[in-house]
Amino acid sequence: MTLVIKIGGAAGIATERVLDEIAAYLSKPGRDRRLVLVHGGSDLTNELAREMGREVRTLTSPGGMTSRYTDCETLRIYAMAVAGQINTELVAQLQGRGINALGLAGVDGRLLLARRKSAIRALTPDDRVQIVRDDYTGQIEHVNAQLLNMLLATGYLPVIAPLALSHAGERLNVDGDRAAAAIAGALDADELVIATNVPGLLRTVDDPTSLIRRIEAEHMDEYTTYAQGRMRKKLLGAQEAITGGVRRVHIGNAPLRELLSGSGTTIEASAALVAVDGKG
Amino acid sequence: MTLVIKIGGAAGIATERVLDEIAAYLSKPGRDRRLVLVHGGSDLTNELAREMGREVRTLTSPGGMTSRYTDCETLRIYAMAVAGQINTELVAQLQGRGINALGLAGVDGRLLLARRKSAIRALTPDDRVQIVRDDYTGQIEHVNAQLLNMLLATGYLPVIAPLALSHAGERLNVDGDRAAAAIAGALDADELVIATNVPGLLRTVDDPTSLIRRIEAEHMDEYTTYAQGRMRKKLLGAQEAITGGVRRVHIGNAPLRELLSGSGTTIEASAALVAVDGKG
Repeated sequence: MTLVIKIGGAAGIATERVLDEIAAYLSKPGRDRRLVLVHGGSDLTNELAREMGREVRTLTSPGGMTSRYTDCETLRIYAMAVAGQINTELVAQLQGRGINALGLAGVDGRLLLARRKSAIRALTPDDRVQIVRDDYTGQIEHVNAQLLNMLLATGYLPVIAPLALSHAGERLNVDGDRAAAAIAGALDADELVIATNVPGLLRTVDDPTSLIRRIEAEHMDEYTTYAQGRMRKKLLGAQEAITGGVRRVHIGNAPLRELLSGSGTTIEASAALVAVDGKG
Repeated sequence: MTLVIKIGGAAGIATERVLDEIAAYLSKPGRDRRLVLVHGGSDLTNELAREMGREVRTLTSPGGMTSRYTDCETLRIYAMAVAGQINTELVAQLQGRGINALGLAGVDGRLLLARRKSAIRALTPDDRVQIVRDDYTGQIEHVNAQLLNMLLATGYLPVIAPLALSHAGERLNVDGDRAAAAIAGALDADELVIATNVPGLLRTVDDPTSLIRRIEAEHMDEYTTYAQGRMRKKLLGAQEAITGGVRRVHIGNAPLRELLSGSGTTIEASAALVAVDGKG
């Protein structure tokens, strides 16, 4: 059983709880449990940037997707936040719980190789399209699954910061949800959990009773209209994970055990595909 | 042939040069070359702390050794500097030179396990002894050599940030030179190079012609009086490395090839010890 968990990465009670749940999950006897933890770091990056007196800017694509505007200096702050503070803190916290965690950034051993978008189209505040050239954001093209498999086989729990390597040897900001999806796909993971601060995909924003419990991946298109802001990337990540061979993706804010048994939004590979794949 | 190199870690021409030299060293055909890179990060930590409006403080032990006063917030800044910025930047720069570098902090996989000094004696400005209890500095007690050997055997070049793990699961600031020494000892390295910004140990400070070329480790005590400031920790590291089984330690600012052939200060295990060890 291979499980990939994506968490936000902000310090706090929610993170402590997930780490406790991971420790409990791994302490269960029985089948072989392989686990990889992927984290984000947007909030701390913004906080640090403000502390250093720098403006935090966002780019909106013509399709309406938003992303951090990552110029050279912002990339440096992002690296410090995700690989320096959050990653080492999560590793130490897990070690304190008796789990042999090992942190990696995507640059390490070419774990996450990405294509830099050297010219990206973004909307100006008055809705015109402009070209941005000094952005260090990337799209993951390859995951070094061999490295992760070796670490898992020797008893380490990989904790991964979404800082990818470009083909030219640059560090790149990549989306954490989509990084987790790419990693889950490359490891042929059974399940991907995307822990977040909302119950899952809601038909009506702010109404938890409108939670959509189950989506068959082939009908995903019918549901993307309900996704706002960050949820759009989570659904995109879910879709990429399923395409990559992951059986189930869970999105929500419930405890790990409950999410795994479907208390959030679960996106599933269609039954036919699962059967053909021999995993059904 | 196993070689451990310690560099300062500050971005700049000197670091670029060392990385070029490492690439050249590893591209040589012939014998099996295992290399581990360890870096520091004091300068960037100070720079960041100032940028965030925080005071940088130093502790002086009754014996005259100085170290960074690392309270909880300073530790966070230290982690961001060494593990977030410097480590990932060095890895990306090496990857850009075609070398499969993989960065680790000492917390990762219990690479550097250290004892936290929960109460340390330090001198006040007026030379009285005070006890400091909120310092996150440690003394390395164990190196996970198995992890490094596995990574080296599978073709990775480990790049190590001196951020150790305490027995209680805390992150600790450890001295980079002594971390490199402990790693070199644990790997049974042939040579340790401590690259710095002075030619080596000088009899007269600021007089490069007073360079001490060669020290037999058993006569080390006769030379420590010449060491000032940071050089004292480098000599201490050299002594620890030799005790750990390293054959030669080179300290200096010359190109790698020249340092390895003795152009800086070379501290050597005594001939008798080397012969007994079967390495002579």
